[in-house]
Amino acid sequence: MSIITIVGAGMMGSAMSYPARDNGHEVRLVGTHLDRAIIDRVREDRYHPRLKRYLPYGIEPFQVEELETALKGSDLVIGGVSSFGVDWFSENVLPMIPEKVPVILVTKGLQEEADGGLLPFPYAMKKKLPSSKQNISINAIGGPCTSYELADRRNSAVVFCGDDMAILLELKKTLETSYYHINISTDVIGVECAVALKNAYALGVSLTIGLIEQQEGIGCQLAYNPQAALFGQSIREMMGILDMVGGQSENIVYGAGDLYVTIFGGRTRKLGTLLGRGLSFHEAMKELEGVTLESVVITKRIASAMHKRQAAGIVRMNDFPLLAHIYDIIDKGASVDIPWKDFTKS
Amino acid sequence: MSIITIVGAGMMGSAMSYPARDNGHEVRLVGTHLDRAIIDRVREDRYHPRLKRYLPYGIEPFQVEELETALKGSDLVIGGVSSFGVDWFSENVLPMIPEKVPVILVTKGLQEEADGGLLPFPYAMKKKLPSSKQNISINAIGGPCTSYELADRRNSAVVFCGDDMAILLELKKTLETSYYHINISTDVIGVECAVALKNAYALGVSLTIGLIEQQEGIGCQLAYNPQAALFGQSIREMMGILDMVGGQSENIVYGAGDLYVTIFGGRTRKLGTLLGRGLSFHEAMKELEGVTLESVVITKRIASAMHKRQAAGIVRMNDFPLLAHIYDIIDKGASVDIPWKDFTKS
Repeated sequence: MSIITIVGAGMMGSAMSYPARDNGHEVRLVGTHLDRAIIDRVREDRYHPRLKRYLPYGIEPFQVEELETALKGSDLVIGGVSSFGVDWFSENVLPMIPEKVPVILVTKGLQEEADGGLLPFPYAMKKKLPSSKQNISINAIGGPCTSYELADRRNSAVVFCGDDMAILLELKKTLETSYYHINISTDVIGVECAVALKNAYALGVSLTIGLIEQQEGIGCQLAYNPQAALFGQSIREMMGILDMVGGQSENIVYGAGDLYVTIFGGRTRKLGTLLGRGLSFHEAMKELEGVTLESVVITKRIASAMHKRQAAGIVRMNDFPLLAHIYDIIDKGASVDIPWKDFTKS
Repeated sequence: MSIITIVGAGMMGSAMSYPARDNGHEVRLVGTHLDRAIIDRVREDRYHPRLKRYLPYGIEPFQVEELETALKGSDLVIGGVSSFGVDWFSENVLPMIPEKVPVILVTKGLQEEADGGLLPFPYAMKKKLPSSKQNISINAIGGPCTSYELADRRNSAVVFCGDDMAILLELKKTLETSYYHINISTDVIGVECAVALKNAYALGVSLTIGLIEQQEGIGCQLAYNPQAALFGQSIREMMGILDMVGGQSENIVYGAGDLYVTIFGGRTRKLGTLLGRGLSFHEAMKELEGVTLESVVITKRIASAMHKRQAAGIVRMNDFPLLAHIYDIIDKGASVDIPWKDFTKS
């Protein structure tokens, strides 16, 4: 039995308490300053108002002011913040974690560097740490796993990635259950790139849903040939980008599964559908009440990095026509006009 | 303008008449002996009773006895039979086609050889032709494209594969329209293997739909984490098999899109769902009224070929646990019990 502290009480961070508790660990859940109401409620009766489920028995909730207490004696820290909380986590949580305690992030994403490089969060975080902290092991979770289905103990397959195979094996042993299936990989850039890209491309595939509705009315029968065509094109471009960043092409597996699950629901599908129906990005974001979506952030970040690489002569955006179009839509106000013929250039 | 003869008036063969006619070609549609009623009806008012759509104006229907007339002067022959009609096509149609007239098959599939080899239909057909006919160009169409959505002129992306790039370019020019998007590839074994495999793996992913229904009742809310997990595992195993047969791993793109679209409907999903609910293969096939499914045939064929390769020491079935399980279910009467832990062996 270990002591596991989850920092960030959003949906995915909190959902990690199910496999952790099911394996008999002591689980502490620490809310950020944004999670105050969640922690208040969990303290009351274990109900998580956003996950809409009761968290497992025995979980210990903490408010952000109690972070130090919550981290005391921990054997593992799960970083449960969203990509918008990464800087906060780096600056406020990481420095409090002893070097020998491994960290694993549920956060998916990449950070852009000045030269067009793309850094997975584990590396981006480490870069900011002082030299005295460089031995801390920061790992990340990728793969297709929605929080509410994990909370319902549905069979879910993920991948833990990090630099140290021995630590990955230990993390797998700590958190694997009969329903939470864990692959491990030391290809951090490949895995993180694949799972970050799926956000951008899920937006792309969803465009076709709205395009059909524009022709035939909202709620019409869906067409799958166009979705499948963009799904295939997405996989093609994602493999190209994996190759570009030096990831292993076999890790497209995690991006493919993640793309598959992301298309089925949530705000990224909603945004893609609205854009496909003919709304401008501005109008669509208004309908989504201005919530900043990770898919939008990651699309801009990756496309921006690729434009820099293009300027440096090492990438041709023409090889990524779907990504380029998505970027034009959300950054330049372009109308949706799928560049079909660019997908089949010979 | 060319003369295009489609042999086989099933759904996909007939659907090819839309892009062909839209490009202004003369289109002849020849039914096999199984398509007699279809051709009778098309002659009456162009309505295709299985596709449930009116075929394009100007299409010329022929019964099988008129095959010779229908082939006369053709510039291109589209093989529109299902995989069960491949031998008939090879023996009765191919010999009547002049060597200079290219053939393209809508039929997807692989033929097993005695040594565990897997031959795509274009090669299997050619093998049976006399030496005097070895210069005929036999090509095939892969990729995610359901016939009814093609008939509705939905954007659909396919891949034409064959040995001769010049012929592929010509075929693309002949059949590409504003909605029918054509990639081309000379990796015949890679493309055909990818698109054949999707049938087997679509069955696999669909198992999880029935498994949830078994727990929570038919018509319950679907869970996507398990589907996405098997989707990812499918892509992993498909890439492994592509590699095994000497195909290019990038052509997983066509298999991925095709897998995506196949999971959404049709009899393969139905069979997988029934098996997942707990029916035996025998019971499930009874509910499907004993119709032989291509997914079942292709699963048996590929698994059988792989077992032969395993016996020869060149493949380990353990590396393909999902395929092995699907095979056990449909060939050995095994119960559904997804080998989750085999997917994450380190």
